[in-house]
Parts: sequence; C-alpha cells; structure tokens
Amino acid sequence: MPFAFLNALQNLLPPEALVLDHERLRAFECDALSGYRALPLAVALPASEAEVVAVVKLCRTHRIPLVPRGAGTGLSGGALPVEGALLLGLSRMRSLLALDPVSRTARVQPGVRNLAVSEAAAPYGLYYAPDPSSQIACSIGGNVAENAGGVHCLKYGLTVHNVLGLRLVTTEGDVLTLGGACLDSPGYDLLALTIGSEGLLGIVTEVTLRLLPRPQTAQVILAGFPTVSAAAEAVAALMAEGITPAGLELMDQPTVRAVEDYLHAGYPTEAAALLLAEADGSAAEVEADIAQMRELLLRCGANSLRVSRDETERQAFWAGRKAAFPAASRLAPDYYCMDGTIPRRKLAEVLEGIAELSREFGRPCINVFHAGDGNLHPLILYDANVPGQFARTEAMGLAIARLCVAAGGAISGEHGVGVEKLDAMCSQFGPDELAQFLAVKRAFDPQGLLNPGKAIPTLHRCAELGGVHIHGGQTRFPDLPRF
Amino acid sequence: MPFAFLNALQNLLPPEALVLDHERLRAFECDALSGYRALPLAVALPASEAEVVAVVKLCRTHRIPLVPRGAGTGLSGGALPVEGALLLGLSRMRSLLALDPVSRTARVQPGVRNLAVSEAAAPYGLYYAPDPSSQIACSIGGNVAENAGGVHCLKYGLTVHNVLGLRLVTTEGDVLTLGGACLDSPGYDLLALTIGSEGLLGIVTEVTLRLLPRPQTAQVILAGFPTVSAAAEAVAALMAEGITPAGLELMDQPTVRAVEDYLHAGYPTEAAALLLAEADGSAAEVEADIAQMRELLLRCGANSLRVSRDETERQAFWAGRKAAFPAASRLAPDYYCMDGTIPRRKLAEVLEGIAELSREFGRPCINVFHAGDGNLHPLILYDANVPGQFARTEAMGLAIARLCVAAGGAISGEHGVGVEKLDAMCSQFGPDELAQFLAVKRAFDPQGLLNPGKAIPTLHRCAELGGVHIHGGQTRFPDLPRF
Repeated sequence: MPFAFLNALQNLLPPEALVLDHERLRAFECDALSGYRALPLAVALPASEAEVVAVVKLCRTHRIPLVPRGAGTGLSGGALPVEGALLLGLSRMRSLLALDPVSRTARVQPGVRNLAVSEAAAPYGLYYAPDPSSQIACSIGGNVAENAGGVHCLKYGLTVHNVLGLRLVTTEGDVLTLGGACLDSPGYDLLALTIGSEGLLGIVTEVTLRLLPRPQTAQVILAGFPTVSAAAEAVAALMAEGITPAGLELMDQPTVRAVEDYLHAGYPTEAAALLLAEADGSAAEVEADIAQMRELLLRCGANSLRVSRDETERQAFWAGRKAAFPAASRLAPDYYCMDGTIPRRKLAEVLEGIAELSREFGRPCINVFHAGDGNLHPLILYDANVPGQFARTEAMGLAIARLCVAAGGAISGEHGVGVEKLDAMCSQFGPDELAQFLAVKRAFDPQGLLNPGKAIPTLHRCAELGGVHIHGGQTRFPDLPRF
Repeated sequence: MPFAFLNALQNLLPPEALVLDHERLRAFECDALSGYRALPLAVALPASEAEVVAVVKLCRTHRIPLVPRGAGTGLSGGALPVEGALLLGLSRMRSLLALDPVSRTARVQPGVRNLAVSEAAAPYGLYYAPDPSSQIACSIGGNVAENAGGVHCLKYGLTVHNVLGLRLVTTEGDVLTLGGACLDSPGYDLLALTIGSEGLLGIVTEVTLRLLPRPQTAQVILAGFPTVSAAAEAVAALMAEGITPAGLELMDQPTVRAVEDYLHAGYPTEAAALLLAEADGSAAEVEADIAQMRELLLRCGANSLRVSRDETERQAFWAGRKAAFPAASRLAPDYYCMDGTIPRRKLAEVLEGIAELSREFGRPCINVFHAGDGNLHPLILYDANVPGQFARTEAMGLAIARLCVAAGGAISGEHGVGVEKLDAMCSQFGPDELAQFLAVKRAFDPQGLLNPGKAIPTLHRCAELGGVHIHGGQTRFPDLPRF
C-alpha cells in the first residue's frame, strides 16, 4: 500500500517537491518540542494549492495520514511526524499575494514568515501585530495552526484576532473560502474554528491578515521588585487601573541573572523579579501611559525603575527578555517550556505553587512570561542524558498544567497542545467537551487522516489516565491534587 | 404528541415560566424583522440553567424543535417562532453573576441587557464595548447568537472579540464550558464557533465578557461633503492614513434631512453626505487624532466641518445618527434594513450600485451606516399595505446582498442571517462551504431540533434558487448579474 502510494506521489509531484530518502527525512523528524522524534513516511513540499489538493486526494484514496508542517518552530509537537504518515511541508508556498493599505490587509501563502509580512507592510506605515518569539523563522501557516501570540498580544490579540480570511483544503480535496476581507462573515465561524486547530481540520493554503498602523512611538519601563509576589501583584494592580500596556513581561531572579551572564543587558540582578512594561501609540499617549505606570509600579513596591530614553535603549531593555530562552540553555543542558494561562489575580499564588512543585519534583524551574495576560512560561531545567530526568520533568509539567486548570486557567496560552499536552487536556476538559471536539473533528475529517494523535485526546486515553467518569459522576478527576 | 409534550412541560416548569394560551403567545410571534410572523407551540421561560437543561431534554425526548429567544430585538428573524416548535425565552435569566475588575471580566446570564453590563462596570472605570443600536433593550444572549456589533466595533471589535467564555447546553442536555477567563483556550475554538451561530448549535446559559477601561474622553467631528463618493473616499483615505477612529459613520442627504425634520440635530442639510468621526482615549490622544482627522477630511473635500466642544455637544452630534432609524419611519410607512459588508475601497462604487438598483426596482433607499468597517445599512422604503411592495423590496434586498458579495464583501455585518438572508447565503457560499456548515450542525444537533430553517440554507434550496451546481462545475451562479 505505501509502495503504490509513494509511486503515485512521485508521478504527482516534481522531484524537488519530494523527500524520500532516509538521510534527508531526518531533517524533518522533529519540530521545536524537545524529547520527541519520529520519521515520516515521506515529505511532500507542494508549491501551489493545486498540488496540495492533489496530494490530499491521493492520501485519501490510499488512506495515508497527513501531518501538515510550517517552519517547524512549534513548541508542542504539532508538526511532529507520525509514523507511516506523509509530512506535508508548506514552506515552498511563500508568496505575498496582495497588500491593500486601504483595507489594511495582506493576503499571503502559508509559508510566508511572520516577520516578512511586517517588512512588506512597513512602507505603508502598517505591520502585522502577533509577534511570537520565533517571528524571524516561523510561518503564518504555523501561526494559524497554533493560534500564535507574542509579547504584544495583550494589547493586539492573538492570531485569531488578526486573521480575516483563509482558504482551507479539506480531506475531500475541496477548497473552502472562510471569512474574507471584512470584519464579519455569515454562517458558522469556521474561520475561528480553524485557527488553532493544529492541522486537524484541513490544510491552510492562503491567509488574509489584518494589518495595523504602526504606533508612532514606544517606551518601556524596567522595574525591579523585592519579591516575585510584589511584582505579580503590581501586574494585577496595573491592569485593574485601566491601563493596557503594549507588553507586560515578568522575569524572576534566576532568569535575570542568566540573561545578565549571557549578554549584559544592564538588568538589576539584585531584584527578585523584574517587570518590563511597554506603552505605544502617539508621543502624548505614550508619555501619559508611562507616567501613570511609573507612579503605580513605584506605589506597588518597585525598588528600582528605569524608563527607556530612546529607541536604542528600548531595544536594549527588550534584548534581555528576548534572550531569556537561549540564556536558560546555559543553566542546564536542556529545558522544557510550559505554557499555562491563569487569571491575572492568581499570579502570585500560582507562582508560589510552581515553586513548591519545583521542590517536590526536585527540578529547578525559572519563570519568564507574558504577565499581562497571565500566560506563564515556566522553564523546567533538566539533563536529557541523565536517565529519568526527562520523565520527571514531563510529570512536573503535567502537575503545573493541572495547577493552572485548578486556578481557573488553561493548559496552553499560545503554544498549542500538540502531542505534549494531550494528557493535560484530560484535566482541562470533561468528557462532554472532549466528545464535542471529537464530533467536530469527524465533521471535517471522518476518516481521521489529518494529524492523527494530536491536540485532542481520546476519551479512552483520559479515562485510563485519570479515572475520568465518562458517563458522568460527581468527581471527574479523583486523582487530581487539590490546590 | 404535542399534547403529551405540553403536559410534561407543565410538570417541569412553574406556571410563571410557561405561556400556552393563544392571546399571550401573540406577544412572541415575531422579533424586530418586519414582514414575518409565526405562532410558537408554546413559550418556556426558564429561570435557571437546570431548567434549560430539563426543557432541552424534554424536547429531545418528544422530538419537539426549539427556538431560543433573547430580547426579541433581532433584525433578521433569528428568534422568529417556527410553527410546532417551542420558543425558549431566556429573558428571566438576567443575573449579573460576577464582576472582576482585576481580570476585567463580567460573568452574566444570557438575559442581562447589553447596557446593564456597562452600568454595572462603571464604578470600576470599565465598560463592555459592543454597542448595538438596541443596547438599552437587547440581551447579551442575543448579542452572542448574532455576533452583534455597533458604532464602536471598528476600534473595539464585534461580540466575538469581547466574549471570553460561555456555558452552552447541547441538544443532549449536556453543559459545555467553552473558553474561560483567559485570552485563549486549548482545543478547537468552539467558543468562537458558537458566537454568531444564531441558536443553531446550543443554548447559551452563561457568558463571560471582556471589559475595557472606559476612555478618559472622546470628541466627534461632523463633516459635510458635496457628494456621497467624496465622503466614501474620505473614509478610505482616513483608514489608509493609519487612523482608527472609535466610530466612523456615513449618512446620505435623505437621511440627514429626515433626521433634521425629526429632531433638529443641527446637521447641515445642504450636504450630499455627512461623516461622523469619533476619537477616544486620553485627552492628548484625542486632541492629536481629531487634528489629524480634521486636516485629512478637509483635504478630502469636506465643505463643512465642526468638532464637538464638550460632552453635551458630542452627545447632540450622535443623537441625530442614533435617531436615523426612527426618523426613516417618517419617510414611508415601512422600511427594510439591509446589512451588507464590503471592503472599504469599494464604498463609492457599491453606493452607486445601490442607487442604480433603487431606480431599477422603483423603491427609494436611504443610507446610514458604519462606514469605517464597510458595514452598509441601506434602508429600503415601502408600504406593506400596497400589494407587491414588500415582495419587490425583498427582491431589491437580495440584489443588494449579491452586489456586496460581487464586491468581495458579505451579505451580513452584524444582524445575522436568520430567515431573512437564507437565499442570499446561496450567493455568499458555494456548495462546499454550505456542506461543511451542515456537517458542523450535525456534529452539534444530529436531530436538527435547534432553530430549524434558520441561518444555513439547504443545498437543495440553493440549487432551486440559482442553479447552484452541487457537484461542481465552473459557474456556480449562472443567474447572478455581473457587476
């Protein structure tokens, strides 16, 4: 069966659009999720929507599963190959098809890099707002699949808030046009449904993005706090005051020290926690916001505070934050990045809970995250070469995810579920929600060919994992620790 | 069968939660869509989620269809009763359950009025942004069903951008928790899918709303233009300049004159078109935005321009716009309000097309609409007592909807499809998209009990209407006029 399929695939696509030999397949065996690898059956790299349709139809005929892949920068294993499945890479579809400054939209192919959109829009004073850390490399198609966020999504929203339309190839090989260039579209919101669906519902072949006017100016405050709790409470106070910073990031002391060792950003290493609070807009607006935030952060106990004086200094303040992940690699051979989201008022409490789990599991954990929208990124440090450390790290990750759920939050903010958080999904959702997810999946992909085994766990898996009472009952998760 | 059902219903709900007698049922025979009436089998008015679940389960057992209803202010017939169906009114579920100024969220029951949320949030300096014209009366549940917008959605988004979570009762009687208090939620985005689904996928019993800091101040510009085209082009120029007004409304001369006759707002009746352009934010920001917009509107040919000097004058400027619909009732016994959305760059062209259709169909049509997001509201004037006029008006409405689709737009912006735009949906979507909508519907409501005959036309209806080639073919709509 795979032999006939591979033969047919070779007839369908030109040689440069196919990877078949074992050595070259190795380049595709993982995405940016550490600890997971698998070899695909083959890699197809179509250059057009027509080629995507042809490949999907062929897979359907031969019942070969398909795993779509963007730039491979995903952190949850959404693009991890599945054994026996075709990997469908969209990196060659990277044309910027149209840019309309009046409607403030850009129509692009899925392989276009996130930052390339803003670069193309710059001459019109426009930009594309979502800015994941990987924006130099990650693709718009991948951003759509994972509903990517970034430092500025507190003010400007996630991918779902910035995409106006899509073209989606279904498993039938039909091409659906979802949304468009307008604010709303009639019918069910299949556009939003598709965004963040991690390649399980269809293959995105075109995306219409909303562009925003580039803010005239921006300034950032760097504020040190004597305790992590004080910084967390300053975040809650700031948001309650009615300020919406363009970005509001928190770094704990171990992260700050790692960053300082790495690139000497000028961060105050004596602070137990550091906040970066940015304002953007017109000069007058930025001045007013910075003054208000400055006053409030001092009132909340900041014991050091600096405001960027020019664009160079602003970039320097951010450079440290942006280097936090590479800096963390110097603290341990490996790190595992979590992605829980919690209500802002629970920040101090949950950070304390994570510190407790760190002691309990015996794994160091540092924190650097989007505090403004309560999106935590605990980095658990470990050494993959020490037997058992990765398993223990994963177990601690699951405990953090459950802690977030118990605090009224979510197991993921912007990285997606992929293969990484399948078990955590059993804590997030009950059997009714999971059953509805599976029904929606069947409505798009009745044969289950698209990215199998990702994003949505089976009811059976959840039942085995944690004693989910599939047919109801009072306690859904009797094994869950109570926080 | 209905007899057994009605008996069981009486055992389930207290007398005050049931309307059964013919005379009292008449109060529920329509919503705000003119020209359509139908009597429901009965009206249930549950006071709690538990009662909703019980009613839904009973309907399922007896296979009685259900039509959910909010405040009945909808303009597309989404809450129009269906003969033989139970009308499920949610107006008694009107508790504000929680308001959290730190997370900036409000958790409310579906019957809470839109404006009541902002009133409750006002002491914290917060408000709920979506502001449909009916906001004094319309309910949050209805806003969710229709994905309501309003004057300020240009800057602050539609309902889907301002709802963080829902509780949804399925036809099975299960209660799904969708979204939450956080920015994003893992799994498929069933939250967004449900918003705007017009009561076809489930019954909303609780909504978590995002609140925003109330802008410190606001000012509005009133600018007259010598032609409608000049005003339309000013809108495009303004948006292309990188300004996002809080509201940007256009009214043509017949509307301005009707408004002046009605309440003497002080509008310049000699202008062929009038723009209202609002800025909100900090004092400095508003001053800068108003100066920039003022300069640009004059450059685009405004021949009269006034800026509101204080809050009283700002309210006065808006009063005329808000009175446009009642004022229109003085021009003719009845009017029919359309709701197309088009790309902003096509505004002048489509308005000219509507004027042509007005001549062709012999029905006067006035225009007052959300120009900033290209959301047209043509009001077709007619007299329901003159035989044939309503049919001709509806036909012109369909032609306008098709004109919007041909311009790359949509048949609805914020009023929903309901029963009104079912035929227009056949112009908006091809058979592949419609088939996918129907598959999603089956994934939620396999028996088709929820709001039958609304929002999504059958493939058969579209095929009969316009020769849709269900099994493919080059020309999907051979009868469509080419614009």
